[in-house]
Amino acid sequence: MSSRTTPTVREILHPRSVAVFGASESTDKFGGRITHYLIRHGFEGRLVPINPSHREVFGRPCVPRIGAAPGPIDVAILAVPPEVLVPMVEECGQAGVGCCVILTIGFAETDTPEGVAAQARLVELSRRYGIRLVGPNCLGLINPHHHLALTSSVAMEVPALIPGAIGLISQSGALMVSIHNRAHASGIGFSACASLGNQADLEICDFLEYMVEDPLTRAICLYVEGFKDPMRFLRAAESAQRARKPVIMVKVGRTGPGVRAAKSHTASLAGDFAVIEAACRERGVILTDDPNDGMVQAADVLARWGAPRGDGIGVLSPSGGGVSVTADRLTERGLRLAALHPSTRDRLRGLLLPPQVNNPLDLGGRLSADIIENAGQAMAALAADPDVSALMIMLSTTPFFAEVTRELAKAALASGKPVVTIVMPGSAADRPREVLRQSGCPFYDRLDDGVRIWEIWTAYWRALQRPAIVPPGDPPRPAGAAEALRRAPAGALTEPEAKTLIAAYGIPVTPGRMAATGDEAVAVAGAIGYPVALKAVSRRVVHKTEAGAVRLNLADAASVREAFAAVADAVRRYDPAAVVEGCLVQAMARAEAEVIVGVRRDPQFGPVVLVGAGGILAELMRDVQIALAPVSVERAREMLRALRVWPVLEGLRGRPALDADAVAEIVSRMSWLGADLDGRLVDLEANPVLVRRAGEGAVVVDARGATQGGPSDA
Amino acid sequence: MSSRTTPTVREILHPRSVAVFGASESTDKFGGRITHYLIRHGFEGRLVPINPSHREVFGRPCVPRIGAAPGPIDVAILAVPPEVLVPMVEECGQAGVGCCVILTIGFAETDTPEGVAAQARLVELSRRYGIRLVGPNCLGLINPHHHLALTSSVAMEVPALIPGAIGLISQSGALMVSIHNRAHASGIGFSACASLGNQADLEICDFLEYMVEDPLTRAICLYVEGFKDPMRFLRAAESAQRARKPVIMVKVGRTGPGVRAAKSHTASLAGDFAVIEAACRERGVILTDDPNDGMVQAADVLARWGAPRGDGIGVLSPSGGGVSVTADRLTERGLRLAALHPSTRDRLRGLLLPPQVNNPLDLGGRLSADIIENAGQAMAALAADPDVSALMIMLSTTPFFAEVTRELAKAALASGKPVVTIVMPGSAADRPREVLRQSGCPFYDRLDDGVRIWEIWTAYWRALQRPAIVPPGDPPRPAGAAEALRRAPAGALTEPEAKTLIAAYGIPVTPGRMAATGDEAVAVAGAIGYPVALKAVSRRVVHKTEAGAVRLNLADAASVREAFAAVADAVRRYDPAAVVEGCLVQAMARAEAEVIVGVRRDPQFGPVVLVGAGGILAELMRDVQIALAPVSVERAREMLRALRVWPVLEGLRGRPALDADAVAEIVSRMSWLGADLDGRLVDLEANPVLVRRAGEGAVVVDARGATQGGPSDA
Repeated sequence: MSSRTTPTVREILHPRSVAVFGASESTDKFGGRITHYLIRHGFEGRLVPINPSHREVFGRPCVPRIGAAPGPIDVAILAVPPEVLVPMVEECGQAGVGCCVILTIGFAETDTPEGVAAQARLVELSRRYGIRLVGPNCLGLINPHHHLALTSSVAMEVPALIPGAIGLISQSGALMVSIHNRAHASGIGFSACASLGNQADLEICDFLEYMVEDPLTRAICLYVEGFKDPMRFLRAAESAQRARKPVIMVKVGRTGPGVRAAKSHTASLAGDFAVIEAACRERGVILTDDPNDGMVQAADVLARWGAPRGDGIGVLSPSGGGVSVTADRLTERGLRLAALHPSTRDRLRGLLLPPQVNNPLDLGGRLSADIIENAGQAMAALAADPDVSALMIMLSTTPFFAEVTRELAKAALASGKPVVTIVMPGSAADRPREVLRQSGCPFYDRLDDGVRIWEIWTAYWRALQRPAIVPPGDPPRPAGAAEALRRAPAGALTEPEAKTLIAAYGIPVTPGRMAATGDEAVAVAGAIGYPVALKAVSRRVVHKTEAGAVRLNLADAASVREAFAAVADAVRRYDPAAVVEGCLVQAMARAEAEVIVGVRRDPQFGPVVLVGAGGILAELMRDVQIALAPVSVERAREMLRALRVWPVLEGLRGRPALDADAVAEIVSRMSWLGADLDGRLVDLEANPVLVRRAGEGAVVVDARGATQGGPSDA
Repeated sequence: MSSRTTPTVREILHPRSVAVFGASESTDKFGGRITHYLIRHGFEGRLVPINPSHREVFGRPCVPRIGAAPGPIDVAILAVPPEVLVPMVEECGQAGVGCCVILTIGFAETDTPEGVAAQARLVELSRRYGIRLVGPNCLGLINPHHHLALTSSVAMEVPALIPGAIGLISQSGALMVSIHNRAHASGIGFSACASLGNQADLEICDFLEYMVEDPLTRAICLYVEGFKDPMRFLRAAESAQRARKPVIMVKVGRTGPGVRAAKSHTASLAGDFAVIEAACRERGVILTDDPNDGMVQAADVLARWGAPRGDGIGVLSPSGGGVSVTADRLTERGLRLAALHPSTRDRLRGLLLPPQVNNPLDLGGRLSADIIENAGQAMAALAADPDVSALMIMLSTTPFFAEVTRELAKAALASGKPVVTIVMPGSAADRPREVLRQSGCPFYDRLDDGVRIWEIWTAYWRALQRPAIVPPGDPPRPAGAAEALRRAPAGALTEPEAKTLIAAYGIPVTPGRMAATGDEAVAVAGAIGYPVALKAVSRRVVHKTEAGAVRLNLADAASVREAFAAVADAVRRYDPAAVVEGCLVQAMARAEAEVIVGVRRDPQFGPVVLVGAGGILAELMRDVQIALAPVSVERAREMLRALRVWPVLEGLRGRPALDADAVAEIVSRMSWLGADLDGRLVDLEANPVLVRRAGEGAVVVDARGATQGGPSDA
């Protein structure tokens, strides 16, 4: 066993020595390409080819096995057949290698028992020898600042790596190299790129934490299929937020059959991806939908020009068509065209016809005969506007195309504000493209790219405006809360059981009592006061209305007695296996609006709380806000304000304002209940919560839920 | 004046002779470029340069003015200074020219009195001489089949025009040539391209009608800023639908400040663009958001492979990352991944590891050592699946990149199903791109392009499934309808006035009567039966609830008397200028759900009808369906089924089914009322319409509206 210390991610990305298994001079083979790319891109450390069939590779002495390598090896890269991989990693461990980068496939990703077992063996070796692993099933690492091209990908067939300020972490190797290669064509460089594959040992967060600390990295791009340690990811995201480094992420698995089928509203509305979205939004992580289009380009804009200082975008095009298309597309995506200051309008009035004095700015109706000079002056005026924080040039063909382009780029870049050009034509814009390249002005062929760049940029601007996450403060737990938690049964909860838990956290529930017979129900109703509601209680019936288990507005004893028999019958017809434990007799509650408040244990992020539009419209509108539990009352109020039904709570069109404060209190208390149940929580849902007028409170009318484990495990 | 007949669009696109004003050999000048491009692309007719300063241009005899041209001139093209344009067009008219294509700017688009007047003068000349005009402010015409490059744009600097099957009509000249140029780079050809500019004479519909008839055109792309004759456009769209020629359109002006501010729900929910969308959807016109990205590419797929035979898409990528990203993006846009047949799965099981036997198909876990052959076989299996109607290849880097690409393209094209490849990397994919070019397999760099292509393709598939528009049948007008229309006052209608009109069309409204005093109100309430609702009636008060003009559930005479005074007071406080005409006393209605039904006169398309989720949620959900009025009851039922609240009407989760038939009847009758009011209609809105259980009907509880013109004009 080796005496070396386990290397850090920084050390792995800056190796002093690299061993290549299967090194050769044949670029038709993995090991050959790896050797070739390491040399081509000028790796400055020691390069040790390993291959029993060669004496020398590209003039460097070759050793037959890792144990024969001269001097210590920081990183070994292996793209060997799966059947020999594990023994070779073991040899690396014995030889004191710091880290193995494993490109070989055939492990857990195959979903076969053999593949899973082989990966477990790798993890075991990693622990035993203190050797770090990247992969398996990855495509390696790239560190342009260190001249390190540690991958077999043909994407390294570029003349030179471009050192830059963007960190790229991708679970998919193919995406990492495709993204790198596309970015390279636009002159965009990286501070480091890592592909993680199956994350058997080192995972996304190891590299994310490194990049948050790394002074060369100013923006971070992630492609994620699944988190190995979701809570660690959130902590890393919080560090990035504090460091003001934008993190832009594509998380796949947003859609799929699994997202739909779910038993409770809370489970279906707070699905796995919705929870990731909520957790990311709170931490300023920007989610986007395409790793190859727009993500890196936006990171480039953020890394180059720094954090946005506003969200107003100034758009200019030589054509009215370009202007119209751009305005519609930006506005449809919720982006904001800057509102020009009167002084800007005055300047533009000297340059353009009245209909063109506008943002987006159409150069079509210029007053001056000198179209080139006019373009530069108009761009300068637009770029100087105080509400313009970013610039987009939408190039369609125009007379003196290259010259106009040069003036536009010059004036835009002189403003110091971020600028992106979209070039619409094909070959007719070859010279303008060359001009843009020489000017150092970013340009892309697709308005789609521009839209995504400003979407990400605007999202980051909004993230910067949002208050940082504050701890939710003292938990509002009444005296009996701990006792109620302890007593809560395991499995599906009946309505009275769920309400008992909820009430124990100081949340108002409608008055009511269980009745075992019709006569008892009449007695309870008399005590509560008519009219009453009556609901059959059975552990097996989740959707009571659907089962016919609910009768409302019962005005007298006869109706109560009749309803008691009827609901019990209905439940037995609905589910012959259902045991009716009795009926809940409850005061009728009236209010102005309904909401749903729920908690659920997310498999990745633990307890989450949800609030949304209630009643029958809950699932039609899917108007919900989600947060990791617990939340403070203030945070709960922000969640309410973000709902589409907020105007109803606030008092829409002369209607009375409702008691949003009471709802926020309920949301916070439910979130504490969920957090306290923690591992025992499956889900718990108050639906509907009736909301009265401001000052008159809100009350839980119905509730359901399920727990696991139960009192004995607590 | 000329004795020639006015030319058709076909003749204009196939001129036997073209005169170029300002012709020269200098490509720095408009006339020079036009001459140059006409010659370069081999115009086969007579080319007549016009320029008093030249004797000859490119070896062709030049004449000083159009009157001196030898022989008849079919088309003259003018890119001359605005101050000389009008006289020159007049000379053309005198010389018997068939059509002037006018590139000159400075007309109505300037929004100046001089510009508007100059354009009016052009229209007058067109009428006087029977000369057709294209433009002004356009960039000309391109007809590759006729070797006609009639434009000054540098986009004509391509080696050769590509004759094709796509017709392109664009109001914006810059967009036409940019689109043409970008398409050219992808090898996509056109049957004809026309830019219309200000549409002073010939307009979009002239060219659209031509392309619907033209046998060479198999798909039509439109870029539209505004319709000159909206109803003519709809008729042309219907012809295209009958001819099964897809029409794909970008209509700008979807967003903007004007879209928001509107007085009634109907006006704000059925905004101008919503009406265009509805009218287009019914006629199979496919709306998309970007003329440069995806539109022409989708037209190319439709023109090449014909109408879609299903909507199932098969996706294949060499990488799991490519597969995941594509699946999410397609699914998020409502596109459908084909569900593989068991026999396809069987075939794939012989080629791939179990987790890869899927659509989208990841080539990563192949069983065979021969990656190239394996790729071809997997693609063949996927392409042969009966539910796969279209194929997308998502190329990330892979070993044997070019060879794998060749096999994939070959197998995909052999299936005869439409296929598009997205190439993710940059320069690393240069050889695969060459392979795709040689194979004749369409390929693009952006997944965005692929998403838009299949969006348009799927939209066309759905359009083909939809029943054709049928006339709404016999109008359901009761006996008194005509009389009620005649009597309807002009201007804002009070609730009783609006309800009188609505009731005259056989639509149930809540029973009620006007009362001038508190005592009268008590008498009416007694006659109707308690409880009642009471509403102050005033022409100036549109939002009655906001004004405090409504009191509900009044149970006795004392409450009615008190309410009468209170609502009148409230209205006067709300708007001191309001005249209270009395109070409407009405039976209280209860029901299971609320909808809104409205009609409105759209400035472009005339009367439209709207139905949507009602009550306070109407404006929050914006859940509406719109159609041109009138509609049949069957069509109204389809509109209801397309609402997000349809499950509520249908009976959600064991709730009772509601009387959707009664609502459909009301929608149809309201649509007839709107159609009959026609030019007098401003808007008319039944909100809420209370919907009872199936068989129990629906009733209009409140209504408002406005007309113009009035009885005397009728």
